[in-house]
Amino acid sequence: MTRQTSPRQPRRRQIGLWLIGARGSVATTAICGLAAIRAGVTDATGCVTDSLDLSSAVFPGWGDFVVGGQDIAPTSLEKEAGRLAAAGVLPQSILPLIADELRAADAAIRPGYDPVTDRGPQAHAAARQIADLERFKQANDLASVVVVNVAAAEPPAADWPEYRELDALTRILASPAARSLTPSSLAIYAALQAGCPVVDFTPSPGLSLPAITELAQQRGLPYAGRDGKTGQTLLRTALAPMFAARGLRVLSWSGTNLLGGEDGANLADLGQARGEPQAKARGLTALLGPDVTAPLHVDYVPDLGERKVVWDYVSFEGFLGTRMSLQFNWDGYDAALSAPLVLDLARLVAGAHRAGETGPLSELGFFFKDPLGSTEHRLAEQAAALSQWVRRLS
Amino acid sequence: MTRQTSPRQPRRRQIGLWLIGARGSVATTAICGLAAIRAGVTDATGCVTDSLDLSSAVFPGWGDFVVGGQDIAPTSLEKEAGRLAAAGVLPQSILPLIADELRAADAAIRPGYDPVTDRGPQAHAAARQIADLERFKQANDLASVVVVNVAAAEPPAADWPEYRELDALTRILASPAARSLTPSSLAIYAALQAGCPVVDFTPSPGLSLPAITELAQQRGLPYAGRDGKTGQTLLRTALAPMFAARGLRVLSWSGTNLLGGEDGANLADLGQARGEPQAKARGLTALLGPDVTAPLHVDYVPDLGERKVVWDYVSFEGFLGTRMSLQFNWDGYDAALSAPLVLDLARLVAGAHRAGETGPLSELGFFFKDPLGSTEHRLAEQAAALSQWVRRLS
Amino acid sequence: MTRQTSPRQPRRRQIGLWLIGARGSVATTAICGLAAIRAGVTDATGCVTDSLDLSSAVFPGWGDFVVGGQDIAPTSLEKEAGRLAAAGVLPQSILPLIADELRAADAAIRPGYDPVTDRGPQAHAAARQIADLERFKQANDLASVVVVNVAAAEPPAADWPEYRELDALTRILASPAARSLTPSSLAIYAALQAGCPVVDFTPSPGLSLPAITELAQQRGLPYAGRDGKTGQTLLRTALAPMFAARGLRVLSWSGTNLLGGEDGANLADLGQARGEPQAKARGLTALLGPDVTAPLHVDYVPDLGERKVVWDYVSFEGFLGTRMSLQFNWDGYDAALSAPLVLDLARLVAGAHRAGETGPLSELGFFFKDPLGSTEHRLAEQAAALSQWVRRLS
Amino acid sequence: MTRQTSPRQPRRRQIGLWLIGARGSVATTAICGLAAIRAGVTDATGCVTDSLDLSSAVFPGWGDFVVGGQDIAPTSLEKEAGRLAAAGVLPQSILPLIADELRAADAAIRPGYDPVTDRGPQAHAAARQIADLERFKQANDLASVVVVNVAAAEPPAADWPEYRELDALTRILASPAARSLTPSSLAIYAALQAGCPVVDFTPSPGLSLPAITELAQQRGLPYAGRDGKTGQTLLRTALAPMFAARGLRVLSWSGTNLLGGEDGANLADLGQARGEPQAKARGLTALLGPDVTAPLHVDYVPDLGERKVVWDYVSFEGFLGTRMSLQFNWDGYDAALSAPLVLDLARLVAGAHRAGETGPLSELGFFFKDPLGSTEHRLAEQAAALSQWVRRLS
Repeated sequence: MTRQTSPRQPRRRQIGLWLIGARGSVATTAICGLAAIRAGVTDATGCVTDSLDLSSAVFPGWGDFVVGGQDIAPTSLEKEAGRLAAAGVLPQSILPLIADELRAADAAIRPGYDPVTDRGPQAHAAARQIADLERFKQANDLASVVVVNVAAAEPPAADWPEYRELDALTRILASPAARSLTPSSLAIYAALQAGCPVVDFTPSPGLSLPAITELAQQRGLPYAGRDGKTGQTLLRTALAPMFAARGLRVLSWSGTNLLGGEDGANLADLGQARGEPQAKARGLTALLGPDVTAPLHVDYVPDLGERKVVWDYVSFEGFLGTRMSLQFNWDGYDAALSAPLVLDLARLVAGAHRAGETGPLSELGFFFKDPLGSTEHRLAEQAAALSQWVRRLS
Repeated sequence: MTRQTSPRQPRRRQIGLWLIGARGSVATTAICGLAAIRAGVTDATGCVTDSLDLSSAVFPGWGDFVVGGQDIAPTSLEKEAGRLAAAGVLPQSILPLIADELRAADAAIRPGYDPVTDRGPQAHAAARQIADLERFKQANDLASVVVVNVAAAEPPAADWPEYRELDALTRILASPAARSLTPSSLAIYAALQAGCPVVDFTPSPGLSLPAITELAQQRGLPYAGRDGKTGQTLLRTALAPMFAARGLRVLSWSGTNLLGGEDGANLADLGQARGEPQAKARGLTALLGPDVTAPLHVDYVPDLGERKVVWDYVSFEGFLGTRMSLQFNWDGYDAALSAPLVLDLARLVAGAHRAGETGPLSELGFFFKDPLGSTEHRLAEQAAALSQWVRRLS
Repeated sequence: MTRQTSPRQPRRRQIGLWLIGARGSVATTAICGLAAIRAGVTDATGCVTDSLDLSSAVFPGWGDFVVGGQDIAPTSLEKEAGRLAAAGVLPQSILPLIADELRAADAAIRPGYDPVTDRGPQAHAAARQIADLERFKQANDLASVVVVNVAAAEPPAADWPEYRELDALTRILASPAARSLTPSSLAIYAALQAGCPVVDFTPSPGLSLPAITELAQQRGLPYAGRDGKTGQTLLRTALAPMFAARGLRVLSWSGTNLLGGEDGANLADLGQARGEPQAKARGLTALLGPDVTAPLHVDYVPDLGERKVVWDYVSFEGFLGTRMSLQFNWDGYDAALSAPLVLDLARLVAGAHRAGETGPLSELGFFFKDPLGSTEHRLAEQAAALSQWVRRLS
Repeated sequence: MTRQTSPRQPRRRQIGLWLIGARGSVATTAICGLAAIRAGVTDATGCVTDSLDLSSAVFPGWGDFVVGGQDIAPTSLEKEAGRLAAAGVLPQSILPLIADELRAADAAIRPGYDPVTDRGPQAHAAARQIADLERFKQANDLASVVVVNVAAAEPPAADWPEYRELDALTRILASPAARSLTPSSLAIYAALQAGCPVVDFTPSPGLSLPAITELAQQRGLPYAGRDGKTGQTLLRTALAPMFAARGLRVLSWSGTNLLGGEDGANLADLGQARGEPQAKARGLTALLGPDVTAPLHVDYVPDLGERKVVWDYVSFEGFLGTRMSLQFNWDGYDAALSAPLVLDLARLVAGAHRAGETGPLSELGFFFKDPLGSTEHRLAEQAAALSQWVRRLS
């Protein structure tokens, strides 16, 4: 995005939005969408913040952002946007209208950390990323930079001692021999060291290591995560409370996800490996108690392209033991569901930072499958908490 | 049900539950279920009040009710219960265990008003019903009687002048020539005249006539209605807020209901006649705005027996105009979903009456498709309002 | 399409394909698809004839057709093709590659009969249409012209005496006062008078009047119809035989169709009016016997665009009275399912004509909901009959 | 079943039906159903043979069978029938009417081979089973005995040399040290040695070992298998040919099976272990070609009881590359779908045996997922082949 100052807020400095995984489908959709909203060629359908009555004294507007980021992929944003348009995620017609903004964002993307080629102590890689962030901030005279992780999902974190406290982690990062952090955690470590609030939109280890949240706490930074709630879990957290509220006993909640997409194969494998089924079952347990059978599968079906097709079958017991069932199908574009939330989170976390909030922003649990700082999974309650928090800050 | 005093509350007088349409499937299921709960052979799955932490000083317990009612049908409760068990609504095994309670309730059912055979001024029929209620109350030494309408649905009310104010209605009822009120409204008129709080669980004119609510107001009685929210609308009021909360634009919400059941044919015809499609579309409008296409059909499919099978297809627009869809299927037993709510409402409205509440109990909107006294249709907000109201009264 | 002679068959004269309703979505898709196949930019997926091993001595190839037609709409094919591409029915990318062919076809489309503006005896309108067809044939030196009706559906035929025999019809058409035939039947009358074999791909009266088929018989022409089998009925005729073959007793088969599209509203109204539900139920009766409950609805849901979304719920009884169910959802583009069959039928009927077949081509029942000349509705049996017929003619 | 001679066929000797796994849910449902049909309290819905016009000179009638079998489970048929009735597979009401027949069948069930407790050479176990069969035959004066394997599924066969030819197998069976055959193969080996035609209704190694089919060939016995086609595969073989016949290109066919039942857990594990997904994908390959993505899952969901719930999502490409989809849900009772086919197969294979057929009965492929002796998977073609075969033999 260009450095142009929004005409409505002439004196205020802009806010950076720094995307980890900036050339992926979610980031590209977010960048295109932000540009299209600013160009006035689309509205903010799918975004939450436009209906939240945000105080402009606290929260930045769509025009207040400058976009940059990092990625190890070399594909240009323009090319990725073209691919997404062919796949139905973006309308072809907006591409010429946002070409300049895409090029500007593309120019602001720096190489990410590649564990295969990036030798040497990880502290060096972190230092490079910190320098990139500071350069981005200075070059654009930014008030602050919100860092959002939307890079490809990584396997679950190992249980290593240096993950448990910051001192140990710092020592390991300095060691030339050891490479401990996954790319997502390393990028978030660097972001926090650079004084940036962070959003972790993925199920990667990212922000979840105690040593990393210790760093956020030490630096007095707010953060939010994790794992954007965009499809099956969104529906589950809207529907499971219905059964609970009506005293209906859910016996089983079986789910299948079919997904195409460039890294669908990876995700399907990972889904099993990193225990996504167990994680989602935990979510159901929080909502419905421990006795629900909840098998879950993730399948890679390349022809679906950027679509995600979900089937859930819920078997429940009602009055006098009657057996009944609910099933639903969801057919959506994951990137189109994620991208507007990424933009919402950038506004909200930038506002929280300006308002002096620190630590986990539990009131943003509305956006996440696995909300940091909160045990509330019910969607309506999360929406109410978000509204109230926005009012408090505004 | 017997007059036995609950051992836990030795000094308190019992509460009557008087069912309009007492031999129908919903009433029979409620009567069997209450008996089974009291006999300890089932729990209250599907009931809401057990998890609401009701104060026993205000709200009656399961053991505090004596059941009676009225119906024009002659079938015994025992026979109807047998039919429902064969249809899967009740477990066969409980029937012998509740036979005594069923017989007692059966003996307390009085003939309803039959517009075909019941000639003479409707005031006479009303007087007979009032007398029935008073006899029921005295015979069982009841503290009060809650009247719940679960009779078969009637066509929508005509726009007659006597429906608009009580004086005009009173004059018409006294006239030997005119028969103005439908059976449901007449029964509710009688109930209010007898000083009983009323629940209208059907979409019939019942409680909805201004002259009738004027009577309730005049007598200082609480009432709640209308049209129990048990299937498709329950799901819609759980799911539609999800789209709204996420800024997703619903374009169409198409629905089909397949239902068997003894009066399914009547309901299918009536569904079109009384504008159920339009009514449900209005519910969606309240939740999603006026621009949603919402065709709806009700079909009679006899082989489904007591089951109701629903299909809803929701087409919505997300970020940058992407088109996505959600569809769901619901396969349930209507009587098994309705009956526990009837029992819940009996407890709640009896408590409200004891606590001196009057007029429409808007906080009971949670239970109804078309909540009297409230414009809130969102299920989670309705559940929260109910909880808060219970706490206030307790 | 251009008059270029196919290089593989240098001496053979080409065949005309004359589309009634040539500017509608099915015709436009067929014209674009034929051009794209000939341009080598797509294969014939969705067509049946490529896998049928047609003898090229009898049946024309894709390169052998010249396209023309009639329509009362003024929209150019190019514009309609653009609209269909935006709606997902055609790939945007082929449009520039077939622009010349589209323009050529567009130039060969003549005004259709408009009952509102076209006064005078219908015989005059018929004469004009016959002249159009003959001009088309001569101008392109065609061996023959196959006429296919793909115009918008019309209400069911009245029961008028002139529909019963050709003499009476001829007299009425000559009368200046009377306008008897619907546009579809008039166009087919003209086609037969011009010596052209006819396909009726719609549920309109079209080819179904006895006086019209008498004309076909008198002229010794083959014909095929009616009402292309492309979605719900296609699935039903594939699935219903499964139940029959396995001795499973279908109790009810309930269906809902949601369709957008330019004339969706018309179709939804018409669907009820012309008894489509009853017609489809008759199809089920032919397959499953008379005792199947079969409610069916057609709804207009504009946001679906060119898509058609179907839900069918089948309730059936198995061994010892067990109740089981099957439900399916179909999400398709009607024009994309119809167009290749139109092209197939053009090839097959042209071949039949060349081979001297006359009367109803019952072996083409595979393509139709309501197969003329056949009572066989089972898809697999229809496919086998088609194969055998092709072998006989080849 | 009793030895009573059917009154219609006074002079003919009866036929034995010997069930391997005779106390399981499929066998029990088959035994109950046969008894109920003979008692005239149910019809043969779900059976195929009643509509096939079988010659009674060749094929036995329902009244011609005497039932026996083997199982390692001790549960009585009566108890299992009670359990199945509670689970909805059998109507409670028939149990008293067939009690005598159940007891008679129960008395004719002999202990099966238990690899855990049955030490010694497998040839001894085989000899015992042969003796059981011969005793059953003599005791009931049977013309022949058809043996049907409906025991629990076993893991896939290892690739052992003795499975490849009968001589090697015979040597191994005689060895005291080795235990080579799984229970299903051992029982089928014994059946063939006893001169009985065999049906393998399971996916177990059973009949599929070359050494076993060599034995059948050597003994001149007919046999049929394998793996009854009752749910998802039944639908797939009805629907996949529709896509092929219409030239529609299936891109992916994703499936999920949810099943309860006592051995559901075993099946879910086994499903993955024995490559059921790959096997079903092979079926699709036979029908649709090799390029179809076909993930498949089997989940154990205990609350479903005897039900099996299936979801299939088919993504396909039509004309000009349009993407469309079909999805279906199947909710059935596996035992109720299998049992009537077991009875059908008993009649058909007994008839084949009487008619002198030998080797794999490829015309019975209609009944099986993995038809022995045939590569035809299309349901309609299989039904036609079956009809023709029956006519040939009749």
